[in-house]
Amino acid sequence: MRISTALTFILLFSSAAFAQNKPQPSATRPTANAQASFSPQLMQELATIRDAALADDYTYRQVAHLTENIGPRMSGSAQAQKAVEYVAEELKKLGLEVRLEEARVPHWVRGIETGELVEYPGQAGGTPQKIVLTALGGSTATPVEGLTAEVVVAHNFDELKTLGREKVAGKIVLLNFPFDKQKAAAGLALDAYGEAVEYRGSGAKAAAELGALASLIRSVGGADYRLPHTGWSQAAGIPAGAVTAEDADLISHLAAEGPVRMHLTLTPHRMPDITSYNVVADLKGSEHPEQVVIVSGHLDSWDLGTGAIDDAAGVAVAMETAHILQQLHLQPKRTMRVIAWMDEENGGGGRDAYAKAHALEFPNYMAAIESDLGAAHPLGFDAKVTPAALDLLKPVQSVLQNLGANIIKITNYSPGADISTMAKAGVPAFGVKQDGRTYFNYHHTAADTLDKIVPRELRENAAAMAVMGYALAEMPQLLPR
Amino acid sequence: MRISTALTFILLFSSAAFAQNKPQPSATRPTANAQASFSPQLMQELATIRDAALADDYTYRQVAHLTENIGPRMSGSAQAQKAVEYVAEELKKLGLEVRLEEARVPHWVRGIETGELVEYPGQAGGTPQKIVLTALGGSTATPVEGLTAEVVVAHNFDELKTLGREKVAGKIVLLNFPFDKQKAAAGLALDAYGEAVEYRGSGAKAAAELGALASLIRSVGGADYRLPHTGWSQAAGIPAGAVTAEDADLISHLAAEGPVRMHLTLTPHRMPDITSYNVVADLKGSEHPEQVVIVSGHLDSWDLGTGAIDDAAGVAVAMETAHILQQLHLQPKRTMRVIAWMDEENGGGGRDAYAKAHALEFPNYMAAIESDLGAAHPLGFDAKVTPAALDLLKPVQSVLQNLGANIIKITNYSPGADISTMAKAGVPAFGVKQDGRTYFNYHHTAADTLDKIVPRELRENAAAMAVMGYALAEMPQLLPR
Repeated sequence: MRISTALTFILLFSSAAFAQNKPQPSATRPTANAQASFSPQLMQELATIRDAALADDYTYRQVAHLTENIGPRMSGSAQAQKAVEYVAEELKKLGLEVRLEEARVPHWVRGIETGELVEYPGQAGGTPQKIVLTALGGSTATPVEGLTAEVVVAHNFDELKTLGREKVAGKIVLLNFPFDKQKAAAGLALDAYGEAVEYRGSGAKAAAELGALASLIRSVGGADYRLPHTGWSQAAGIPAGAVTAEDADLISHLAAEGPVRMHLTLTPHRMPDITSYNVVADLKGSEHPEQVVIVSGHLDSWDLGTGAIDDAAGVAVAMETAHILQQLHLQPKRTMRVIAWMDEENGGGGRDAYAKAHALEFPNYMAAIESDLGAAHPLGFDAKVTPAALDLLKPVQSVLQNLGANIIKITNYSPGADISTMAKAGVPAFGVKQDGRTYFNYHHTAADTLDKIVPRELRENAAAMAVMGYALAEMPQLLPR
Repeated sequence: MRISTALTFILLFSSAAFAQNKPQPSATRPTANAQASFSPQLMQELATIRDAALADDYTYRQVAHLTENIGPRMSGSAQAQKAVEYVAEELKKLGLEVRLEEARVPHWVRGIETGELVEYPGQAGGTPQKIVLTALGGSTATPVEGLTAEVVVAHNFDELKTLGREKVAGKIVLLNFPFDKQKAAAGLALDAYGEAVEYRGSGAKAAAELGALASLIRSVGGADYRLPHTGWSQAAGIPAGAVTAEDADLISHLAAEGPVRMHLTLTPHRMPDITSYNVVADLKGSEHPEQVVIVSGHLDSWDLGTGAIDDAAGVAVAMETAHILQQLHLQPKRTMRVIAWMDEENGGGGRDAYAKAHALEFPNYMAAIESDLGAAHPLGFDAKVTPAALDLLKPVQSVLQNLGANIIKITNYSPGADISTMAKAGVPAFGVKQDGRTYFNYHHTAADTLDKIVPRELRENAAAMAVMGYALAEMPQLLPR
């Protein structure tokens, strides 16, 4: 069933309004010094939920269906629509009240993407050398026959600025900023990603402002298997791609020796935006139906792989929370809401539509959880919550301790893109925090496929989400904001 | 300078002749109980060579030029010819007597290669699902517009036989035999490769014999980055490709649920064979010029990557032996012959031409060394030699011990494809034995690129080749056969 977004407009919602939404003190909201106090029964239920999730293959079967039978689920694609219908149907089977909530999303379709060096030092006659690359989400197209230009290399924004319009105009810019693999291996994958992804986000725009014909970045990721990583890039009005780490090295080395000219063909096209859907499915709360706990992941993926770790896993883990509660005949006091978000990858249309439709309810929300860092072993959660809220969650940590999933780290940013509008509005926000050491090896590449999911680790994630979700739905107090 | 192969014909050579060549006892050939006896001066020279190789970046610079400036070097390509000229020129600079010796090689050119599943369980409307694949060396072409057929999966030759003509005829066969990653990680990479590569070599032929329209194998290699591995396949008269491990899994899973149909387009074409060259460069022996020691690697590569570990590294390591001797002003007593072989990958044209031209000299050859297992840390050598010969090489092992490159393992097969005709004729044959645990992750893929070379490990290989080569050229006895 589909609800109209028309309703959202009469809520007179604006993004400024929810950005300024302050936490609303509530009668049942505890003080900062409140003690954790879960009943023995709740503790027992949480342990039972954990063990049931660890023993269940429902989650894996969902990921398998989404990735193998449905495949890539790019916003606006037929597969994304198929995935919406599939998840809605599965959640109905679990007895949930399911709505498809409209969201306008881009419909960007990848075209031909080829690159070859047509002039370089050492070249054998006119033989071109192949460059492996892919278009970024915001890319415009080259002419159908491609374009040919000299490549100018900058290793960071400062170098690009120093080159200036004189050396950049009319050229193809390569922004060769490396993803820090050592940092990722040391457990700081998100930091490594954060540094490098700036170049994916705004590199093309910076190059366009200096008159570049096209922009290429070094792929944002840690693998060394000549895999290009796609992803969102701010619209810059020029073709924007990512070459593999190997090709970035090759071009940089050759360009240091002499002129390098490249023939580049990227023919993506952006079709009119279309209406897609968040799948929103409620297990209504028996006592406080208005106090919503969201468990979620995003249903759309990039198109190169089949979106197993990004983020069929997150959706399946959220579905498993409902599946386990149904299996165990547990009805939560607060409403457990499973959301499969649409368009996390290419603009956040699902997030924005949800915020428009539901912002006035946010003050009543208990919490929102998203899983969007893969399916490796969960270490615990990143949480945009107060220290007082964290205190109340100690019993959850104790239940997750024997999984090794008991770390809860307070962040000052939203630990999930789709729940960021809620986090900004003060809703306690949780992101399942996986061991991300290899996540960015596969992220946004053709190699994000089902085999990257380790079934045992996926079940651990399901356990972490279900335990946290149910605890939030059952705990006696609201979390202080 | 180019020598004519015409000369070889008047030698009345036939392959049967050299296959039956028996070791020729010689006056200076020791008995099986001979003791190792290198002079103190030779031991000192070997240590000096080792240390010079470990301190030198000549080898790396050669690999860099071959891979980045010249690029992929497929037999018959302009880049292969450019590489021949480059290596010849470099070896001349070192004062070697350089010949280009003709070899007929295939000229196979990759075309379009795409695959998509056009029917499969769970499919969203008519949306196809992309399959990542590459053509194998012996593949014929599909029609330009591709072919569409049901895919039938067999996991090994026995299953294929059981399916029989009834279930195979008119279908696309997928032979889904996995490369044993655990075996490779445990140090038995060549065993893992040997098992799986049978399917690449003769899978298409077996499928064709049952009436298959086309043959696909699971890529022979250990990585999980959705990389197809190409390689030689016996001509079978049908299109023959390799899908990635991920795609093999996908197809197998879907085919177990229901009919899977694939649209396959492979448009390689084989042009007329052309004349290419082995680069053969001599540092003439001062005392026994006819007693040749060969140090070698192969200059051709597959076309997907730039052939860094397979086998620019082997060529560069062999060149470094000559470079070090020139640097140290060491003229060997026996002839040191550097060979950059052509067409190891696609038929062995260089090996065969060399055998035709030189088989009558083989009885006088001291030994042949090839490096063709990458550029990772050398553990030592595989050697097709007698135990008595091994005894004589103990001093070499002692010089290589502090590198960890001192293992010499006797094999009953040639430890190098290009030196196999010599090995068969009784010439003691050595293959540098690298740590091959990750070699088959990159082998024959687009990811075989310069960055896969660890400079320190490459220098270790150069040291191992140069020490063994010089020892063989200088040691007092001939090796017993």
